[in-house]
Amino acid sequence: MKKLLLVYLAIILAFLGYVYQNRVQTNAGSGQAEEGLKGTISEKYVMVTFQSGIDYWKNCLKGFEDAAQMLNVSVEFKGATQYDANEEKTVLEQVIARKPSGIAVSAINSDALVSTLNKAVDAGIPVVLFDSNTTASQVKTFLGTNNYNAGATAARKMAELTNRRGKTAIITQPNQPNHRERTEGFMETVRQEFPDMSVIAIEDGRGDQLETEHTAIKLLEEHPDLAGIFATQANGGVGIGNALLQLRKKDLVKVIGFDTDKGTLDMVKNGTISATIAQGTWNMGYWSMQYLFHMNHGLVESGAALRAKDGSALPVNTDTGITVVTEANVDGYYAK
Amino acid sequence: MKKLLLVYLAIILAFLGYVYQNRVQTNAGSGQAEEGLKGTISEKYVMVTFQSGIDYWKNCLKGFEDAAQMLNVSVEFKGATQYDANEEKTVLEQVIARKPSGIAVSAINSDALVSTLNKAVDAGIPVVLFDSNTTASQVKTFLGTNNYNAGATAARKMAELTNRRGKTAIITQPNQPNHRERTEGFMETVRQEFPDMSVIAIEDGRGDQLETEHTAIKLLEEHPDLAGIFATQANGGVGIGNALLQLRKKDLVKVIGFDTDKGTLDMVKNGTISATIAQGTWNMGYWSMQYLFHMNHGLVESGAALRAKDGSALPVNTDTGITVVTEANVDGYYAK
Repeated sequence: MKKLLLVYLAIILAFLGYVYQNRVQTNAGSGQAEEGLKGTISEKYVMVTFQSGIDYWKNCLKGFEDAAQMLNVSVEFKGATQYDANEEKTVLEQVIARKPSGIAVSAINSDALVSTLNKAVDAGIPVVLFDSNTTASQVKTFLGTNNYNAGATAARKMAELTNRRGKTAIITQPNQPNHRERTEGFMETVRQEFPDMSVIAIEDGRGDQLETEHTAIKLLEEHPDLAGIFATQANGGVGIGNALLQLRKKDLVKVIGFDTDKGTLDMVKNGTISATIAQGTWNMGYWSMQYLFHMNHGLVESGAALRAKDGSALPVNTDTGITVVTEANVDGYYAK
Repeated sequence: MKKLLLVYLAIILAFLGYVYQNRVQTNAGSGQAEEGLKGTISEKYVMVTFQSGIDYWKNCLKGFEDAAQMLNVSVEFKGATQYDANEEKTVLEQVIARKPSGIAVSAINSDALVSTLNKAVDAGIPVVLFDSNTTASQVKTFLGTNNYNAGATAARKMAELTNRRGKTAIITQPNQPNHRERTEGFMETVRQEFPDMSVIAIEDGRGDQLETEHTAIKLLEEHPDLAGIFATQANGGVGIGNALLQLRKKDLVKVIGFDTDKGTLDMVKNGTISATIAQGTWNMGYWSMQYLFHMNHGLVESGAALRAKDGSALPVNTDTGITVVTEANVDGYYAK
């Protein structure tokens, strides 16, 4: 009987020993160096946009979510339904009030939003701006497309499509800074690199597909020898494509659009338009999350050295790149 | 006896149950989502530079190491001792031969290096360029200072120091693209924003402190009313500072240097020169490592969508920012 009790005791001790050792190992695992970059699921990071229903944000949010999954944190998507600075301001105020772990904002360029962004910074909430920047706020970190380069790339693609010669036109939204930069990049590049090409007109498509179609028809009738048109906004490619179909000019005029809406991709795929410019939307979302996580966890350059500095703790401007989408690679760009 | 045996069995079963449950939990923990971003210590990432002995790289390497520690991977620092493209090419060839997990290169702009960089890309080794870019290679990702903006910031600081009026001069290295951009940023900003200021001379300091000193003395003797000098290279500030001390013009002429060598910081601290421009070197190293890690682990946008694209999987250009260093914040910039 005594023998059995001893065996009994030995087994229980072995059991307790195993449990204890296991606890110790688990604790050792929580040191940062061994854990890697990892947050907690209770950390909530919020993406705030405008015109929140459009396809454009899907891939931004996908990047944001992919990074969140890697880092074991949570995300939320909020946005103004319209292109309305006051509506976006209200949404942002509501998000700030809940003190999230970080906010990635694509901001309408407006004074109303600048003061709200500054309020978030003053409250100590990590904030980055992505896709659309404001002219002046306390937010030091922006991630998005270099729009001048995007226009320059479109010009070089247009040169390739038109054998480096002929008249071209641009249909754009002249009041928006990012569209002005795309226009400038296209024009400067044509002027500097392609002596046998010219930009004979810059028209306002008012950000509207039908308006762009009418503008394109007028342009094509006034300039029957037009070789190509570059649309700087998302629905411009489809508008111009429809104009070409109406005038039976599909293969005579080369069109380059912008962004990767389904309508634009369909027209690239069936050859109505030649190409469109895709922005690095996944990277905007992914690295926004990384930067916010680093700010929230104090992982950026820290200590006295940083506090003494008046600059940004993170990269100030991250150019997320573009790609030219043609018939050859269009299949990879449809939203999944 | 039978009863005791049953208790005995029950305890053993409970024990085995605990062990099994624990195993299951541990396995679940090795999924990427719960682990966070974490590599293995056997992954080796290499930083390759030129003039490898200079202070400038210390903070780049610190950022590289800090990221490596976070991500649980290893680093190595290699470099050409001189400003010699062939020497750097040899070092890079040796590094490539060992097939590391990734290479961050600050490259001398030379055809010799471009072919070696392409060789690394062709071998499937993740490569990013930081600080100094080459004009054309297959490496799609660069991290560094926007030098035009750095020159523009120097011009605005100079305007503040000189009450927005008077003659200024630039001492630079006209053959190096990054120095040309700093010069252009300074000149354009003075021209566009400060009508009562002018840039009356752009001199070649040949990247040498003593040469810069002689050039500054000549400038100051020819233009006794010179209000300020901007040095675009690291040892320029000290060269000009020494010229001021010799001519007893210390408080009469405002000097803005570049980078944060100890000599330059000392002169900012004791008021011989007014300011220097600090680059975001820690960020260059830190985010180089992050990008390389993401490439090596296939964590960038992946699958058919990415393979179909011809662009970069990572941000193409990361502007790591600058800060203006003055007497007020100079203490935070000494190397530790």
